[in-house]
Amino acid sequence: MQLALAEAEAAAAAGEVPVGAVLADSDGRILARAHNLVERLNDPTAHAELLAIRDAAQRLGTKRLEDASLYVTLEPCAMCAQAIALARLRRLVFGAYDPKGGGVEHGARIFEQGTTHHRPEVVGGVRESDCAAILRDFFRARR
Amino acid sequence: MQLALAEAEAAAAAGEVPVGAVLADSDGRILARAHNLVERLNDPTAHAELLAIRDAAQRLGTKRLEDASLYVTLEPCAMCAQAIALARLRRLVFGAYDPKGGGVEHGARIFEQGTTHHRPEVVGGVRESDCAAILRDFFRARR
Repeated sequence: MQLALAEAEAAAAAGEVPVGAVLADSDGRILARAHNLVERLNDPTAHAELLAIRDAAQRLGTKRLEDASLYVTLEPCAMCAQAIALARLRRLVFGAYDPKGGGVEHGARIFEQGTTHHRPEVVGGVRESDCAAILRDFFRARR
Repeated sequence: MQLALAEAEAAAAAGEVPVGAVLADSDGRILARAHNLVERLNDPTAHAELLAIRDAAQRLGTKRLEDASLYVTLEPCAMCAQAIALARLRRLVFGAYDPKGGGVEHGARIFEQGTTHHRPEVVGGVRESDCAAILRDFFRARR
């Protein structure tokens, strides 16, 4: 999560909503790291989680990352949660909860749907206050 | 939808799950067209809808496609439905319903969630039997 937080800091410095993600294999080796690039890429889908999954899958030459764990500073939205299921990730670890836009513990609750055919282990609230502080500071500074 | 069906046919010919998508502006001009490329790109997120949205957004240099309508041969999954909301599409027109994996009329029902901050107009079942037939034939041939 420390690396994901560093990615979030890099996003904030670039004027992107500060969310960072890291994908690691079961030995803890880093497969990909990414932060939000919605503004820079003009891509509404360029969330940290989606970028990390796409990067790792393409680099490893596989559409399934069954061995991988995703660490992300914010509860994924429904788009990213469904992408996690499609990529068959083993584990999702996230920091801050997102009652307004989350799709794991809120709203669509993707992993509880019968239409979702893979459910990762989920651990939420890891370094929650640090992860939330980056977002709070970012939006406060922009007001 | 005719063009989206042609994209789905192209997907089938390439060994990809045959789903096609076309984005058009309010004058009916084509902004992007795409079909599934999950296998070729080794990208679990390379669904037709996501590819079309990313392509149009990057080409137009905007993260929001407020004027656009998406035509897709299959009910979008939750990932693609949330991407449609993030891109602020005006309208979603889809062909076949997808009780097993859909996220619009089934499962996560993304546009009915309080965590979804934009709801497009939705029209389902357009050329439903043609859109479903391509998928049925594809999976039958692979068994």
